[in-house]
Amino acid sequence: KVLWTVLVTILGYASSLPVGDDSICTAEELAKYRIIFTGKWSQTAFPKQYPLYRPPAQWSSLLGVTHSSDYCMWKKNEYASNGVRDFAEKGEAWALMKEIEEAGEKIQSVHGIFSAPAISSGIGQTSTELEVHPRHPLVSFVVRIVPSPDWFVGVDSLNLCEGDHWMDEVSVDLFPYDAGTDSGFTFSSPNFATIPQDTVTEITCSSPSHPANSFYYPKLKILPPIAQVTMVKIKKSQLGLSAPYINLPAKSNEIIDSGS
Amino acid sequence: KVLWTVLVTILGYASSLPVGDDSICTAEELAKYRIIFTGKWSQTAFPKQYPLYRPPAQWSSLLGVTHSSDYCMWKKNEYASNGVRDFAEKGEAWALMKEIEEAGEKIQSVHGIFSAPAISSGIGQTSTELEVHPRHPLVSFVVRIVPSPDWFVGVDSLNLCEGDHWMDEVSVDLFPYDAGTDSGFTFSSPNFATIPQDTVTEITCSSPSHPANSFYYPKLKILPPIAQVTMVKIKKSQLGLSAPYINLPAKSNEIIDSGS
Repeated sequence: KVLWTVLVTILGYASSLPVGDDSICTAEELAKYRIIFTGKWSQTAFPKQYPLYRPPAQWSSLLGVTHSSDYCMWKKNEYASNGVRDFAEKGEAWALMKEIEEAGEKIQSVHGIFSAPAISSGIGQTSTELEVHPRHPLVSFVVRIVPSPDWFVGVDSLNLCEGDHWMDEVSVDLFPYDAGTDSGFTFSSPNFATIPQDTVTEITCSSPSHPANSFYYPKLKILPPIAQVTMVKIKKSQLGLSAPYINLPAKSNEIIDSGS
Repeated sequence: KVLWTVLVTILGYASSLPVGDDSICTAEELAKYRIIFTGKWSQTAFPKQYPLYRPPAQWSSLLGVTHSSDYCMWKKNEYASNGVRDFAEKGEAWALMKEIEEAGEKIQSVHGIFSAPAISSGIGQTSTELEVHPRHPLVSFVVRIVPSPDWFVGVDSLNLCEGDHWMDEVSVDLFPYDAGTDSGFTFSSPNFATIPQDTVTEITCSSPSHPANSFYYPKLKILPPIAQVTMVKIKKSQLGLSAPYINLPAKSNEIIDSGS
């Protein structure tokens, strides 16, 4: 037997580009993964306007979906759906869950929804499991940046299948996106709808190019990653009745650099 | 074949009492349920000190577990674990997930963890799926009341198995609990650790018996339910690859009474 040990760490991965979107997956069975989301939004790495009170920097629930290339949860340079807008602006998941459900029913493009609990600080971790299928090998998810006008991090259509097998581990750095629905410039800007709606854009250290922007760091070339996600395939031997878990670290913020 | 159509609506169900804890489950297979949590925390039903700003009334992520009677997530009149304390005080799920994982590994008392996204208002819904097993037929979960010192709603060891079959639908009204770890009296009280820690207690319209308490309504006999949970068994025919969903209502707050 071949032991696949593929560790793909895509630094600076542009999460809005589908990875291997048109490859055909010939892996034979369902695969289960543990997904671990790590918030790296520290005051050290992001000193500008770092939110300390009411609310302090934190992360919303994670909402994700496993799907085929016929479904798209969100995409860079395209307009956000109403569900993504509600989630990015308010952390309200219902409309997005409903959109996913409808895509699953109408065009069979969805395998399953998954979610993980919110994180109550900028630095921390959350985790859940997800299941992929050869016809639905793509993973997309969103996590709202709290507080923010309509900013989020996430992954768009990451393919966990590589030809005839499932990847063992994938790790991706995450950078902030603007959903294009609220014109606020800073973490704590009041609501101010963008009319007409703009497309989803990546927020970088130089764009939007305005000193008031919370992520505007003109001396940096690129922002440090504000978060990271790791997906680890759960081995069959770990799929017992009682312990379908990868060992989680004892404390969610013990294993994380507080800087960049 | 017998079609089981058991609709159990336990009004005023004391959620801390295990239901059928010691009955033996002889149902043959795994069962999947859709769980729908409905927040009913409206200003009409709970006018006193209703939180309108920073943050307005809302619900945390839902964190739950399916397990045997050898595991207990929380119990009325017993001390909350550190994980339940972190979750009830801050909505921080990691320590509680870690406790559940360890119980699963050490004493095989846990079948799986599930979570559902937060709700950004007092009225609204969230949903996910869970799986039970004849040896792990009990469901427990917690949802933090936001803002609050350490208040939550939840269910403790609800048994979805009834002898040789799985219940088709269970609906339970939920009432607020105090985790016993923070002595705040009102929704927006500042942090004030309870030392020594107190046990988990139900908050009623007359207890704690003090006019400053946010749920103190001396003219009421009982509080209206602040939330409700419904678990609906997913039929085999609905367990397709692509649509393991019960139809969700279009808008999360369309089907809910705004009053009590």
